[in-house]
Amino acid sequence: MSEATITQTHWLARIYVTLKSGVVDPQGDTILGALRQLHFDSVAGVRMGKYLEVTLTAADDAAARATVEAMCTTLLANPVIERYTFEVAPVTS
Amino acid sequence: MSEATITQTHWLARIYVTLKSGVVDPQGDTILGALRQLHFDSVAGVRMGKYLEVTLTAADDAAARATVEAMCTTLLANPVIERYTFEVAPVTS
Repeated sequence: MSEATITQTHWLARIYVTLKSGVVDPQGDTILGALRQLHFDSVAGVRMGKYLEVTLTAADDAAARATVEAMCTTLLANPVIERYTFEVAPVTS
Repeated sequence: MSEATITQTHWLARIYVTLKSGVVDPQGDTILGALRQLHFDSVAGVRMGKYLEVTLTAADDAAARATVEAMCTTLLANPVIERYTFEVAPVTS
């Protein structure tokens, strides 16, 4: 066989999903109200988002990023009301 | 009056709340199952967390950090099962 051996590395993707600006955020508003009740009067606003840590195997950085991008668009974020960002780093074990 | 004028600056705190390792994460497991069903076979694990953006006013960096720390311990994170990290930056408007 002449196929090259592809070494798979483990990667950790940190994914941040936030509501687009202008989208009503009832969860954030509720937390803001609770903080005010606890006398955190200096708080001006709260926006609630999601944070995911995904471990995956991939041949290289570009492959890992492509997979995470695909995950975000097909499952993890709702493109109508949410935006997402992520960073990918090799797992040192 | 001899009181010094304190200039209040706006700060943006990015707060990350994650489950401690070892704590069962049903939401993350559900997302992992869904990703596998979508043929993302390279995914090894998913941990679900929360991401909050809090805007607040404070005199300086130290004051802003102290306020965010107090928010996390009193409302935003459950210290029994969760850990939190945050970063604070001045809002340039």
